[in-house]
Amino acid sequence: MIRYNNDYSYGAHPRILSALTSINENSYGGYGLDPWCDMAADTIRTHCDRSDAEVHFIVGGTQANFTVIDAALRPHQAVVCADSGHINVHETGAVEHTGHKILGLASPDGKITADQIASVGEDYRTSPVWEHVVQPKMVYLSFPTEFGTVYTLDELTAIRSVCDEYMMYLYIDGARMSYGLASSETDVTLPDIARLADAFYIGGTKCGALFGEAIVLCHDDLKPYFRAAIKQNAGLLAKGWLMGIQFEILFRKGLYFELGERAVRYAMRIRKAFENAGIPAYIESSTNQQFVVVSDEVADKLAKDFVYEDEGRADEGHRIIRFCTSWATTEEDVDVLVRAIQGL
Amino acid sequence: MIRYNNDYSYGAHPRILSALTSINENSYGGYGLDPWCDMAADTIRTHCDRSDAEVHFIVGGTQANFTVIDAALRPHQAVVCADSGHINVHETGAVEHTGHKILGLASPDGKITADQIASVGEDYRTSPVWEHVVQPKMVYLSFPTEFGTVYTLDELTAIRSVCDEYMMYLYIDGARMSYGLASSETDVTLPDIARLADAFYIGGTKCGALFGEAIVLCHDDLKPYFRAAIKQNAGLLAKGWLMGIQFEILFRKGLYFELGERAVRYAMRIRKAFENAGIPAYIESSTNQQFVVVSDEVADKLAKDFVYEDEGRADEGHRIIRFCTSWATTEEDVDVLVRAIQGL
Amino acid sequence: MIRYNNDYSYGAHPRILSALTSINENSYGGYGLDPWCDMAADTIRTHCDRSDAEVHFIVGGTQANFTVIDAALRPHQAVVCADSGHINVHETGAVEHTGHKILGLASPDGKITADQIASVGEDYRTSPVWEHVVQPKMVYLSFPTEFGTVYTLDELTAIRSVCDEYMMYLYIDGARMSYGLASSETDVTLPDIARLADAFYIGGTKCGALFGEAIVLCHDDLKPYFRAAIKQNAGLLAKGWLMGIQFEILFRKGLYFELGERAVRYAMRIRKAFENAGIPAYIESSTNQQFVVVSDEVADKLAKDFVYEDEGRADEGHRIIRFCTSWATTEEDVDVLVRAIQGL
Amino acid sequence: MIRYNNDYSYGAHPRILSALTSINENSYGGYGLDPWCDMAADTIRTHCDRSDAEVHFIVGGTQANFTVIDAALRPHQAVVCADSGHINVHETGAVEHTGHKILGLASPDGKITADQIASVGEDYRTSPVWEHVVQPKMVYLSFPTEFGTVYTLDELTAIRSVCDEYMMYLYIDGARMSYGLASSETDVTLPDIARLADAFYIGGTKCGALFGEAIVLCHDDLKPYFRAAIKQNAGLLAKGWLMGIQFEILFRKGLYFELGERAVRYAMRIRKAFENAGIPAYIESSTNQQFVVVSDEVADKLAKDFVYEDEGRADEGHRIIRFCTSWATTEEDVDVLVRAIQGL
Repeated sequence: MIRYNNDYSYGAHPRILSALTSINENSYGGYGLDPWCDMAADTIRTHCDRSDAEVHFIVGGTQANFTVIDAALRPHQAVVCADSGHINVHETGAVEHTGHKILGLASPDGKITADQIASVGEDYRTSPVWEHVVQPKMVYLSFPTEFGTVYTLDELTAIRSVCDEYMMYLYIDGARMSYGLASSETDVTLPDIARLADAFYIGGTKCGALFGEAIVLCHDDLKPYFRAAIKQNAGLLAKGWLMGIQFEILFRKGLYFELGERAVRYAMRIRKAFENAGIPAYIESSTNQQFVVVSDEVADKLAKDFVYEDEGRADEGHRIIRFCTSWATTEEDVDVLVRAIQGL
Repeated sequence: MIRYNNDYSYGAHPRILSALTSINENSYGGYGLDPWCDMAADTIRTHCDRSDAEVHFIVGGTQANFTVIDAALRPHQAVVCADSGHINVHETGAVEHTGHKILGLASPDGKITADQIASVGEDYRTSPVWEHVVQPKMVYLSFPTEFGTVYTLDELTAIRSVCDEYMMYLYIDGARMSYGLASSETDVTLPDIARLADAFYIGGTKCGALFGEAIVLCHDDLKPYFRAAIKQNAGLLAKGWLMGIQFEILFRKGLYFELGERAVRYAMRIRKAFENAGIPAYIESSTNQQFVVVSDEVADKLAKDFVYEDEGRADEGHRIIRFCTSWATTEEDVDVLVRAIQGL
Repeated sequence: MIRYNNDYSYGAHPRILSALTSINENSYGGYGLDPWCDMAADTIRTHCDRSDAEVHFIVGGTQANFTVIDAALRPHQAVVCADSGHINVHETGAVEHTGHKILGLASPDGKITADQIASVGEDYRTSPVWEHVVQPKMVYLSFPTEFGTVYTLDELTAIRSVCDEYMMYLYIDGARMSYGLASSETDVTLPDIARLADAFYIGGTKCGALFGEAIVLCHDDLKPYFRAAIKQNAGLLAKGWLMGIQFEILFRKGLYFELGERAVRYAMRIRKAFENAGIPAYIESSTNQQFVVVSDEVADKLAKDFVYEDEGRADEGHRIIRFCTSWATTEEDVDVLVRAIQGL
Repeated sequence: MIRYNNDYSYGAHPRILSALTSINENSYGGYGLDPWCDMAADTIRTHCDRSDAEVHFIVGGTQANFTVIDAALRPHQAVVCADSGHINVHETGAVEHTGHKILGLASPDGKITADQIASVGEDYRTSPVWEHVVQPKMVYLSFPTEFGTVYTLDELTAIRSVCDEYMMYLYIDGARMSYGLASSETDVTLPDIARLADAFYIGGTKCGALFGEAIVLCHDDLKPYFRAAIKQNAGLLAKGWLMGIQFEILFRKGLYFELGERAVRYAMRIRKAFENAGIPAYIESSTNQQFVVVSDEVADKLAKDFVYEDEGRADEGHRIIRFCTSWATTEEDVDVLVRAIQGL
């Protein structure tokens, strides 16, 4: 069985594990106050072309999301996102647990538009009963989205402009950032994200690290006391250097981008194989997640050799299934899958 | 100018104010521990035909809603309601502020169906990733709804049955209960509500009282420590007897029902007048709120003599406007409005 | 039986009730957007000599406290108060329920000192692990305190100065403000409070109103969106004018101050009677609450004709009991109590 | 420089790191649903002699604490602990952030007594104003405590008995469990803890693991939906097997206990060295943390070769400093420190 069901099924890139091993007998200061975290933060700032950014390392993506949101918003303020946004559907209400409403926008492909956001902003601005409704104060979007789609630079720039107009923060969930940046359907770069977003995180867990995400704070208002927010939300790992060194390894020589590119290249081979086999995509994705609509018969056949994620019924007789490549996917794995698809 | 914009524009029914005056020099125990609260609770239990119910008096409806929800649910549990539900759109995220997600269901007329709720329940029950999603544990519905529509006994019974099937609480917001019970389009009675709901509140503020709502707890699991929940959420009025006596006056001789019936009778005259004038209802309402779609010209004409609530644009050139009758509406007020509509 | 157990046992000053009656048939805009609230806010600003203050009316004291705290603080920030502070011991954890820690300071008489606060501030400022501890960001104090004691102008000024030094907000709970201002042991005036505090509330419920408290916001940072905070915390009364007119009546001609002065004069007669009878005060109070230590025998004797509040055991054989006067206390009531004390 | 400042300065025991390396190319199901977590849970249940317990792995101690507390308590319920309890002083108000008050009990040595707890329980049970105060529903204690002290079996049994009497949960923070169990001053065993506590966690981070804590739920009421609580509080690590294998390694052959015993043996050598040098303990600790009171001169001398934790001033001229041994401390490190102490 080859696992294609997600991108967090394997440990870490070998270079990361050997780095962790090589420093295992060194001692460090706790809670992220160590040279590895300092170095990795610098490296990330350089890659972001944003020397004024604050970088914090945190264990997981859900934690990154609600910690940023909780620290940024006042109690009556809400987050705007796609109805399929991870915070809206797969985090067990963690954002609401911190007290904030999520305003979900209809989105067939996981993306939201500047116009949709502007409409929410305008409704609030012109509301005669503003004290009775939540204030949309932050836009959350995922790059790439939960469906593997990506924003173009024009789209992101338009969203930024709407955020400015309506005084909203722009926050980007980059759990799969390496795969999004490797997409051929976007011209967005990491410096673009760092220039346009007020805060974002660069995913490690799904992109080669054992665990860990790097939160990047760009807007000055979000920086003060952020370490206290992290601690209160249980994100201040005692042995913070474990994350610092991982991100240093990932970013020092561009490994992070390489891993993303390779996984996306493999995903494109799989996408093409499905296309050639006449199996339609559920949503056209240019990143490492591929969603296809298959008959129950095909689903059963593929299930013999591959673990995929079942995303539910498309209609009577057909299912939506997801295949993910990742930094851990090998050429051989892909060959086997492609052959299997060809043989359907 | 005659105010039709809402049903909380006037003080209290004269009998209530004179009762408050008559006891002003009496002293009572604080925080609802007084003979008036005891008496009113008994009277309400009798009217509900539910001797085992707990009755608590609380100042406002938003407070009643989030206090019940907060006390009933564990942190990972959510409330299901119509997307137009008051808790979802007009309480500044108060429910989320207590930590709970609201799952809004599409609803053109303010009502939700047993099937919709069953679908949410079934999705959760069969979810392969239940720990990643909130648990739908309570259904919130309004009787009458925010659009003035009402559930029939069959509909409510079906919803109860689905709640049993999926182990959800059924909670009913009765801010305008007296008007809902007076509708000719439902056969639901107060004892029906008390039999089918796990908790509900009987609105005072909009139905003749100066202020105050009566929360009725039917399910035994919701009763323990509820007074602590009220205090923590600031609902334990120091001079609780002020609410006890009001509800005693409203329910002792059926005043509550009379006031509702009269206001609905007036609303039906207004509804008929609009119909006769060829002005369409936005939503067919059988209770005290009437939503109509008027041209901007008509809206402007009516605005000269009447205060109504503007609910926004229906289309270019037309607006949705709301007229509310209430316990305070007089026959003369209605005559004036009906004549004005006829004269359009 | 004469009730001395608290200061919220009676309805409202007659002038208030007749004012409410006189406007009962008038209609007003909802949620505090009405001429009475505007007028009362102006009147209060004038009495506070603080034309830039925002004034909001809210139903109860617990609600006022946690709404201000919740609106003012970020999640990692805490409130400093006396360990006997009302928010710390008698509000069912309402402040923690909004997410904030209370740092209680030892206080035998209900007061805290500038030095105590400075020590908390200094500990935080110099903490090597500041992200692991809460940030003391607000000082809560009661005027008068829960034990009836009062701060002098020097004491308050020193506290203000420490708050400035450590960047803390100063918030004053004035549930019994009228009695505190009438104390002969303080030179603090309402304008002093409005000049020194960042926010405070003027109590109505215990000082002559049927219900209602007036929150006064002085610091500009606390003003934006405060009405949204009130709504989210259920404090936006639908019929807000009910509170506006009450405060207008209380403040227009100084009734608020008169009522406080009379009640305190009566309390001083009771205090003196206890002193003369050799019954010691538990705490020397110059306001309307008198705490005395009596033998069980005396407690039993007094219980025959008076309702007082039992505050628990002082030692084997002795109890601490509280007698409150209020705006509703009559000269005759006091005569009866004083004679009873003399007869012990 | 040798680090003695804490017990989380080094990576992981070599056996753990090599285990992680050996499985790095294996793929597993996500979120703790994998064979390693199953196996480690079984192993822990066996060591606890409690086959009915649920075991969950979570990244950090603060997270374990507030997740258990948040899942167990209703909004009006509070946690009782020593005023020096970790949740009360070093977790940035994380427990209050979930909405719950902490009731701190005076404790010179980090321990609380059954009598203290009973007193809190009795106060609540007999309170005439129970709705105005929080309900003490859970006892939190640390084993060993933040000062390195330990409870005896008699003490723990008495506390359990009081918890039963007052219907409180007993929760034990075992961040340093291995060191507590190795103390010569307690007869408490892991099965004792599993028998007496309703929930507890076994610390990995400070006891040999790279990271991770094992929550053990004993009381049936705490088990349902706990994985949802973990996810909502960001504790559901995507690659859960990383924690499963670590705990399997620690517990399979008793490594966990060995590491604790060795570190405590070393700590006792250090304790004795200080005693012999006439340097008094701040608190007598029989576990891996040693607190001593030294002159500023001595503190400066020791600071040349050792990193210790400065715990603040004891008096003018003296400081309290902490030396921690850990699983990573070597015999040589201890020799060097002991010689340095002898040479003072």
